[in-house]
Amino acid sequence: MALSSTQQQEIDTSLDEQLLTRRAVVPSLESILYQAFPVLDHGFIRVIDYMGDDSAVVQAARVSYGKGTKQLSQDQGLINYLLSHRHTTPFEMCEIKFHVKLPIFVARQWIRHRTANLNEYSARYSILGNEFYIPEPDKLAAQSRTNRQGRGNVLQGEEAAHVLNMLKQDSQNAYAHYQEMLNEDEEGNILDPERCGLARELARMNISLNFYTEWYWKIDLHNLLHFVNLRADSHAQYEIRVYADILRDIVKQWVPYTYEAFIKYRYEGKDFSRDALSVIKQWINGQTVTQESSNMSPREWRELTSYFGKEA
Amino acid sequence: MALSSTQQQEIDTSLDEQLLTRRAVVPSLESILYQAFPVLDHGFIRVIDYMGDDSAVVQAARVSYGKGTKQLSQDQGLINYLLSHRHTTPFEMCEIKFHVKLPIFVARQWIRHRTANLNEYSARYSILGNEFYIPEPDKLAAQSRTNRQGRGNVLQGEEAAHVLNMLKQDSQNAYAHYQEMLNEDEEGNILDPERCGLARELARMNISLNFYTEWYWKIDLHNLLHFVNLRADSHAQYEIRVYADILRDIVKQWVPYTYEAFIKYRYEGKDFSRDALSVIKQWINGQTVTQESSNMSPREWRELTSYFGKEA
Amino acid sequence: MALSSTQQQEIDTSLDEQLLTRRAVVPSLESILYQAFPVLDHGFIRVIDYMGDDSAVVQAARVSYGKGTKQLSQDQGLINYLLSHRHTTPFEMCEIKFHVKLPIFVARQWIRHRTANLNEYSARYSILGNEFYIPEPDKLAAQSRTNRQGRGNVLQGEEAAHVLNMLKQDSQNAYAHYQEMLNEDEEGNILDPERCGLARELARMNISLNFYTEWYWKIDLHNLLHFVNLRADSHAQYEIRVYADILRDIVKQWVPYTYEAFIKYRYEGKDFSRDALSVIKQWINGQTVTQESSNMSPREWRELTSYFGKEA
Amino acid sequence: MALSSTQQQEIDTSLDEQLLTRRAVVPSLESILYQAFPVLDHGFIRVIDYMGDDSAVVQAARVSYGKGTKQLSQDQGLINYLLSHRHTTPFEMCEIKFHVKLPIFVARQWIRHRTANLNEYSARYSILGNEFYIPEPDKLAAQSRTNRQGRGNVLQGEEAAHVLNMLKQDSQNAYAHYQEMLNEDEEGNILDPERCGLARELARMNISLNFYTEWYWKIDLHNLLHFVNLRADSHAQYEIRVYADILRDIVKQWVPYTYEAFIKYRYEGKDFSRDALSVIKQWINGQTVTQESSNMSPREWRELTSYFGKEA
Repeated sequence: MALSSTQQQEIDTSLDEQLLTRRAVVPSLESILYQAFPVLDHGFIRVIDYMGDDSAVVQAARVSYGKGTKQLSQDQGLINYLLSHRHTTPFEMCEIKFHVKLPIFVARQWIRHRTANLNEYSARYSILGNEFYIPEPDKLAAQSRTNRQGRGNVLQGEEAAHVLNMLKQDSQNAYAHYQEMLNEDEEGNILDPERCGLARELARMNISLNFYTEWYWKIDLHNLLHFVNLRADSHAQYEIRVYADILRDIVKQWVPYTYEAFIKYRYEGKDFSRDALSVIKQWINGQTVTQESSNMSPREWRELTSYFGKEA
Repeated sequence: MALSSTQQQEIDTSLDEQLLTRRAVVPSLESILYQAFPVLDHGFIRVIDYMGDDSAVVQAARVSYGKGTKQLSQDQGLINYLLSHRHTTPFEMCEIKFHVKLPIFVARQWIRHRTANLNEYSARYSILGNEFYIPEPDKLAAQSRTNRQGRGNVLQGEEAAHVLNMLKQDSQNAYAHYQEMLNEDEEGNILDPERCGLARELARMNISLNFYTEWYWKIDLHNLLHFVNLRADSHAQYEIRVYADILRDIVKQWVPYTYEAFIKYRYEGKDFSRDALSVIKQWINGQTVTQESSNMSPREWRELTSYFGKEA
Repeated sequence: MALSSTQQQEIDTSLDEQLLTRRAVVPSLESILYQAFPVLDHGFIRVIDYMGDDSAVVQAARVSYGKGTKQLSQDQGLINYLLSHRHTTPFEMCEIKFHVKLPIFVARQWIRHRTANLNEYSARYSILGNEFYIPEPDKLAAQSRTNRQGRGNVLQGEEAAHVLNMLKQDSQNAYAHYQEMLNEDEEGNILDPERCGLARELARMNISLNFYTEWYWKIDLHNLLHFVNLRADSHAQYEIRVYADILRDIVKQWVPYTYEAFIKYRYEGKDFSRDALSVIKQWINGQTVTQESSNMSPREWRELTSYFGKEA
Repeated sequence: MALSSTQQQEIDTSLDEQLLTRRAVVPSLESILYQAFPVLDHGFIRVIDYMGDDSAVVQAARVSYGKGTKQLSQDQGLINYLLSHRHTTPFEMCEIKFHVKLPIFVARQWIRHRTANLNEYSARYSILGNEFYIPEPDKLAAQSRTNRQGRGNVLQGEEAAHVLNMLKQDSQNAYAHYQEMLNEDEEGNILDPERCGLARELARMNISLNFYTEWYWKIDLHNLLHFVNLRADSHAQYEIRVYADILRDIVKQWVPYTYEAFIKYRYEGKDFSRDALSVIKQWINGQTVTQESSNMSPREWRELTSYFGKEA
C-alpha cells in the first residue's frame, strides 16, 4: 500500500482536529480513526466514523432515557444474553463507516452483503489507478482436486513463476492499453492531441479483476458481525479473509463486550443437526455409533467424528 | 409530556458529559442532543446520536481521503446536484438515532418504513405506562364526506364533548382493567396476593391504540428525507405529521445544505405526468386546453388547473 | 373464523378456475390455494400465490438453463448442503404470498420481520370489523414469576372468569363506542343524520389490541424459514406460534425437500457456545465437569446439563 | 448470443411442459417464458418465472378475498391512482425472476440495486466461458469533453480500429492465460498432467471486465419499475440501457395497465424544483423571466428553457 503524499496529508489533517461532543466516544477507536491498515499488496481499511459503543446496545435494548449505565460490567450479562439468544436489533443500533481499497474480484464477493451502504469510486467518471493485486508466492494455491471450492497445495518452481509472470504482464498490458484507449494518463492529461480518446465508461472494460477499486462502506454492528462470521471463516477465500480479520480486530477495539460475546457464542461456537445431536447424546452416554446408525451422510459423519476426535 | 424526575436526571447527566472526538461534530445538533421535544399530549422526540454532517455526503460521493473540504459553500453545488439527480447513496452515509414516544396507532404507520433500525419498549416483558392520546378539541375532525382518507370540519358542541368523553373514559377503563388483570401496579407491585395475575403478553391486548409506546429508531439521512417528505405532507394524518415536522427541523440543524436542497428540489418541488406536461407546454405557448383535450381524468384536471390558478 | 357468504363465494370462484401454465406447479399447494386455515377464534391464513418449488432452489444454485432436473431425489443432497452450510440465496428464489387475519398485538410482533412485502387493511380509509380475540380458558396463562417473558400456570376459577369477562366487555364497549364516534355501522350507513361522525383515522384509536386486522404478506422462502424458526419456537408467544405452525405445514406442502432439510439442520438442530463445546468434548471423553470449571453462567450450565440429561 | 445445443434443448423441454394451475396466469408472458432475448453480442434475458398480474396489484391494495375483479378496465383507475400517488406496496405484490447473461462491468452497475434476490454463476467453483463483449463500431463513443459522465462522438478510422483491436486481443490473451493458469480447458479437462493448475478462485482475477457472467435475478414489480426508470433512461450507459429496454418491454407484456400508468406518470413524467415551478407559473401568466430572476443555476436554467423550447 502506498498512499500518495496528498492522501497522507489529508489523513493527517483529519487526525489533528479534535472537538468536544456529548455523544458516546470510544477512545481506542478514536486512536486509530482515519489511519490506513494495509491489506494485501495495495489495499487498506480505514475507519472513517462510528456511532455508539457497548453501552448503546444496552441502552437500546432497555429503551432507556440516559446514555447507558456507568457499570458496563453489569451490562456484559445483558450483551451475552442478547447475542446468544439472537436478539439482533440492539446490535443494529451501532454503526460504523469504512474506507476500503480492495481488488475488484474481492469487491464482487463483498457486495453480496446487501444490508449496508456503499459509495464506490466510479470508473465511469474517473480514471482508475494503476494498481493490481499479485499474490505472494506462498498464496499461489493450486486448485484442490477433492473440493471444487477449495485450494490445494501451493504452486512450485517453474509453474509458479510462469503464473506470476502472466498475471503481472497481463495486468501491465491491460493498464497500458486502458490509457492508450482513453488517450489520457492517470492525471487526465491528454496523450495525443490528434486522437479523441475512448469514453471512460467503455475503456474500463479492458481492466482485469485483480485491479484495485475503493469504496466507502457503512454498516451496522449486527450486520458487520455477520460479515465477519462468514468472511473471517476458514472456508472464505484468503483474499477476502484478510480484510475480515482486520474488521474483526476493529470490532474488538470498538465494542469489547460485544466482541467477546460474539467470539464466545458465534465465532467459536458451532451448530449441529438433529442427527448430529443424537450421535453426541449417544457418545456422552458411552454408546457406540456407526455412520450407518447415525443417519448422517458420509461427509457429515466424517466432519463430526473428526471434530470430536472420534474414529470415523 | 411529563418526564419523571429520574428520566430528567438521566438526560441531564448525559448532557453534562463532553469528550473529545476526531469525528465530524455538528455544534447545533450537539446543543439539542438528548433533549425531549414535546409532541402531542404525551409524546416526544429525542436525538440520541448522529454520524456525519454535510461534508460526509461530499466525502462519500468523492470517496475522498480527508474529512471533507473546509469550503462547504463550494460543496453546496455538489449536494444540490446529487439531491436533484437522485444520487441517493451519498446521503445514506449519514446516520441519526432517535428516541420517540408516540401513540400506538401512529407507531403502526411509522413502522411501515422498513429501511430503519428499531427497538421498541416491550409490553411482553414490561408494564405499559398509563398515558394515552386525547386529541385537542380543534383536532377532533369529522370524516370527510368527499374523500375517504381525509378529514372534514371539526366536530362541534355536544358531539365533540361526547366523543372526547368516550375516548377518555374508555382509555381510563382499559388501563384500570389492564392493571387488574396483571394484578400489578405501574411499578410492578402485586396488588392482591391471592391472585396470580395474567401474563403481561396477554394483558396488553386490552390496551387501546391511543396508548403511548416508545422506541429507539435509527435511520440514514436518505431514508429520513423520504420519511419526512411523505409524512410532513399535507395528506399525512395530523398525528404523524407533527412528528415529521420536528424531524424536518432536526434535519435543518444537522445538515443545513442537504436540508436546503431537499426543500428546494423535493419537498417544495412537484412532479407531473406526461399529459400534465403537455398541458403546461400548451399553456406556456398561450394555447387553450380543456379537460377533454388534456387526456387527463377530471380529478387530475381539477388538481392541475387549481395548482396553476387556471379555470377548471 | 366466520367468512361472510360473499367472501366464501369469492374464494370458491377463484378455486373453480384452472388455466395452463409453463411455470413450476406444486399440486399439493394448488389443492389448498385460497382456502382459509382457521387460527385462534377469528383469524386465518390463506395461500394466495406462490413462485417456484424445490427444483427452483437447485436451478438457481446452478444458474441452469432448464427448469431443473427431473430427478429431484438427486437434488436433495444439494438442498441439504445449501441449507446446512447457510448458502441462503438459492432459497430466496422461491416466493409465496399469504392473506392473513390476525389480532393487532400479533400483527405488531409479526411486522418486525422487515424483509417481506405487506399490504394491510386500512382503518384510515375503511371501517374495522367487530371481531376481537378472546383466549380459550386453557390459554389464560399467569405471568411467570421466574421469567419476565414467560407464562406460568393457567388462571383458575374466579380470577379466570373475571379476566375473560373484562376482556369481552371492554372489547364490546370499545367497538360500540367506535361505531358511535364514527356515526356509521359496519357497512358504512350513517347512524344519526344530525351528527357529523369522527374521522375514521381518529376513531380507530379507541380500538384495543385484541381486535383483528388483515393483510397480504409476501415473503421469500429463506426469510419464511427464518420466521418459522423464530416464531414456531417454544419461546414465542402462543398467539403467534399458532400462525407459525400453520406456515410451517404449508412449507412442507410446498417444498418437501427444503422442509426436511430445514427441520433436520435448523429447526431440530441446536448451536452451542465455545464453552459448551468444551464441556461436551469433556463429557464425550468421560471426564467430569462442574459449573465452576465449565466457564459457563449458572443459567447456561443449567440449560446445557438439562438438555443432555446430566446432573446440574 | 449462441446457446449451446444442450442449453437450447433444456429450454425447449421446459417450453413443452404445460400444467394446470389455479394461480393468476398471464398468457402473453407464458408465450415468451424461458426464451432468450439477445442483448449485446453474447448476452440475453430470459423470464424464468413470475407471480401475479395487474389484478394482483388491485387485490392487494383492497386486501380482497377473491382473485381480483374480472373487470380490469375498472381497476385501471385504481392502478393509475396508486402509481401516481406513490402507493408503492401493492406493486411489491408481483414478482418476476430472470436469467441474465451480461458483461461483468454491467453486472457491477446492476447489482447496486439491492432490493432483489440474486444467484450468480460462480467463477470460484466453475470455469468461466470464453465470451467477452466487443462494442459495435457505432457504439465506440469518445469521452465527452463537456460532461465527465457522458459520451461524445463515435471514434473514427484508425483510432477506432486500433481500439477494437486492443480490446479483442487483450480479451483473447486474458482467456488463453486464464486457461493456462487453470491448466484446464472450458470443459474442465486437464491440459498438462505435469502441472497442478492454479485455483479457480485465483485464476479468475486475470479475466477482464468485458467478459460475460450469468445470474438469476428476482425482483418485485415496484423495484423493477424503479430499475427500468433509472436504467432505461437516456443518461444510463448504453450497455445497461439495452437490458433495461428489454425489461421494460417484458413489463408491458406482463402487466399492461401498470405499464401504461408507469409510462404516463413516471417514465414520461418529470419533476421540477420549487424555483422551476415558479418560473413555469410566470411563463404561464405571460411574464418574462431571466436566469438571474429565476434563482436557478445556469445549468438548471439551460435545461428548463431547453425543455420548454424557450430562449435561454
